[in-house]
Amino acid sequence: MQPNKFNITKEEILEYHLGGKIGLNILKSLSNQRDLSIAYTPGVAAICEEIHNDEEKAYSLTSKGNLVAVVTDGTAVLGLGNIGPKASIPVMEGKAILFKTFADVDAWPVPLEGVINPATERTDIQKLVETTSRLSCMYGGINLEDIAGPECFDVEDQLQEMLDIPVFHDDQWGTAIITLAALKNYCVITGKNIKNLSIVINGAGAAGLRIADMIKTEGGTKIMICDSKGILTVNRNDLNLHKKKHAVSTGLKTLADAMKNADVFIGVSVADCVTGEMVETMSEYPAIFAMANPVPEIMPEIVEKAMKGRKYIMATGRSDYPNQINNVLGFPFIFRGALDVRAKRITMGMKIAASSALAELARIGNVPEKVKKAYNRDFTFGPDYLIPTPFDPRIKEWESKRVALTAIKEGVARLKEVPEYNSRTNEK
Amino acid sequence: MQPNKFNITKEEILEYHLGGKIGLNILKSLSNQRDLSIAYTPGVAAICEEIHNDEEKAYSLTSKGNLVAVVTDGTAVLGLGNIGPKASIPVMEGKAILFKTFADVDAWPVPLEGVINPATERTDIQKLVETTSRLSCMYGGINLEDIAGPECFDVEDQLQEMLDIPVFHDDQWGTAIITLAALKNYCVITGKNIKNLSIVINGAGAAGLRIADMIKTEGGTKIMICDSKGILTVNRNDLNLHKKKHAVSTGLKTLADAMKNADVFIGVSVADCVTGEMVETMSEYPAIFAMANPVPEIMPEIVEKAMKGRKYIMATGRSDYPNQINNVLGFPFIFRGALDVRAKRITMGMKIAASSALAELARIGNVPEKVKKAYNRDFTFGPDYLIPTPFDPRIKEWESKRVALTAIKEGVARLKEVPEYNSRTNEK
Repeated sequence: MQPNKFNITKEEILEYHLGGKIGLNILKSLSNQRDLSIAYTPGVAAICEEIHNDEEKAYSLTSKGNLVAVVTDGTAVLGLGNIGPKASIPVMEGKAILFKTFADVDAWPVPLEGVINPATERTDIQKLVETTSRLSCMYGGINLEDIAGPECFDVEDQLQEMLDIPVFHDDQWGTAIITLAALKNYCVITGKNIKNLSIVINGAGAAGLRIADMIKTEGGTKIMICDSKGILTVNRNDLNLHKKKHAVSTGLKTLADAMKNADVFIGVSVADCVTGEMVETMSEYPAIFAMANPVPEIMPEIVEKAMKGRKYIMATGRSDYPNQINNVLGFPFIFRGALDVRAKRITMGMKIAASSALAELARIGNVPEKVKKAYNRDFTFGPDYLIPTPFDPRIKEWESKRVALTAIKEGVARLKEVPEYNSRTNEK
Repeated sequence: MQPNKFNITKEEILEYHLGGKIGLNILKSLSNQRDLSIAYTPGVAAICEEIHNDEEKAYSLTSKGNLVAVVTDGTAVLGLGNIGPKASIPVMEGKAILFKTFADVDAWPVPLEGVINPATERTDIQKLVETTSRLSCMYGGINLEDIAGPECFDVEDQLQEMLDIPVFHDDQWGTAIITLAALKNYCVITGKNIKNLSIVINGAGAAGLRIADMIKTEGGTKIMICDSKGILTVNRNDLNLHKKKHAVSTGLKTLADAMKNADVFIGVSVADCVTGEMVETMSEYPAIFAMANPVPEIMPEIVEKAMKGRKYIMATGRSDYPNQINNVLGFPFIFRGALDVRAKRITMGMKIAASSALAELARIGNVPEKVKKAYNRDFTFGPDYLIPTPFDPRIKEWESKRVALTAIKEGVARLKEVPEYNSRTNEK
């Protein structure tokens, strides 16, 4: 057990999980023979025929339109690594709950066994893609989860190629979308331009590489990525294709080299790999986004001491410091928007839209009183409030609507208008 | 639209199905950061580690212990035939609702695409088995549904061979279990012995063949099965292996031949294929179980006229005549019992136990007042009340417990005792 600020005990966690966290919710009444004749035989046959004649009707006449599958092979679960699909179930159930709680998306865990290459103990891309495609017709979207890189890139690409529903690997895109929102607001606060920022990303896994992709899409040019062996440079011959894409020409070698005069440090790596001395060498008014969980690359207290009164902006993945970069700000609301217009995919434009919406919402301020109370603090846009908190009730309309509108604009939505929010009832 | 006694309109059915019938139910509270830290990271990691160290703990620490997958390839949906998995979703959602409503089992639809052999348009057994096995680790049981025969036999056998959770094809066993219960009580009422009964089964699909299997297990010997070409005899060379198993030596050929002097007619075939004349030729005090849906092999009114005051017992699959042989009396309660003791399979013994429990419950009588009111009639064991009604609240404890105890006795249960019923709470 990692220490945690709520002093949660293992016994409490075990007790909470007894019997599992999820079950079936029945949305329609079923209390007598008449209901049975509508919900099941003979009445249901009329619905089957409707869908048989026009498969798109599955969106309105079944639960597909609000359902997301949370698919994993258990190869990269939390920080625990390749623990397999069965041991991953509690995480997938947790993810399903987050979808439902934050954005009323009915998500369902789909842990898959036997899609590993037994020789390499790595994801068998073809098997995982094929199996997921076979079970996809029930769902309006696929959220890939905790699948190890670099296989995860091909899994997402190939699956999206095959399917006409959104396929989104949250470990790739989730952190990237929220990080970009924080980065944009860092620029607003400091007056810096994203095009000129010198950015260091430590961690060349799925998250690190996609953060680089998204920043480049928004105009960033000066990005150095480091893996455990140092900066990804064109001279290195140990890089896979995905890393090679981001390799740079430089004589610099180490993370410490890269951080000299950098405007931004983005950590998606491991605990305590950054020192106060390294942070000291950064440019004027730098940003340090240290997102390793639960212990960041450098603790905020160490940064504070090293900066000796200089201005800087700090963010972590933790809920007990300001500026939590938490991907729960992304996936529930992005899928909400995608489902609302029956999108066929989640484009880069939709991801950028989600990111921009979050950044704007933080700038607007006006955080509801109940959020202030929950966190026992004020939220004024600035160094200590870069991005919204997950419990801000405005995110659902704000971010999801932007995603949905962008899907329509980019021609990947089946619907031509965004329906009213909160329109789906859960009446029993 | 078939006519129905409730005068349900197509508009009403469409309206009922808007937005689908199912969603995610969250069983545990999740209203603040502390809950999040328990249900998701970092707390959930402790649960993953527990299961990683002992996979059996998935039964108690995830939702697996109460979950059943309702798996189909859409090759034999209701009377609609091979309409494909997408058009089958409304039926699978309906089935899930029945599981939950009748026995508090959390069932989830798993319609599978791309598991059909494109050349033959029939189930690709290997693909369906492999795909189902890959997704099975989330579930405590697999209910196969609406998969065409004869492939369905191998699918069930092979899948059960691979998995350590129950695999049960309801279209094979469901009707058989309830029919056997009715048949046993027919013997009690008439004083006949199952060993001496002359039985005709019309319909040699999955249901018909399994009805024969179960009756033989319980001592039945004189069984003739008919398909659309007549009686399955050893002289026929057009029979597949499954039919051949039940072929008999006889000079008789047609259904009408078979029905002469028969004690029991069991129909799992098509509407109106039996005439009053055929029924007239049956033995003294015969049973006519005409279960084609929604229009039986012969309507009760025609039987009544043909029998001219002779004693007989009539059952159908319909809710608007006495003695409804409805498989909803079986699958929810059988899986309830299997899940309660974490059974590895559903043995023939467990199926027989379910059947016997239903028969005994009908003989006991004492039907609760609210059931009598719902049906607006009295229930006294006899020709008009052979088996319980689905809404009898005693079935859950009665049938499920018998199934669970049999699983323990036969050594296929992980638990050594049947837990208290209704122990699983759905507290939010």
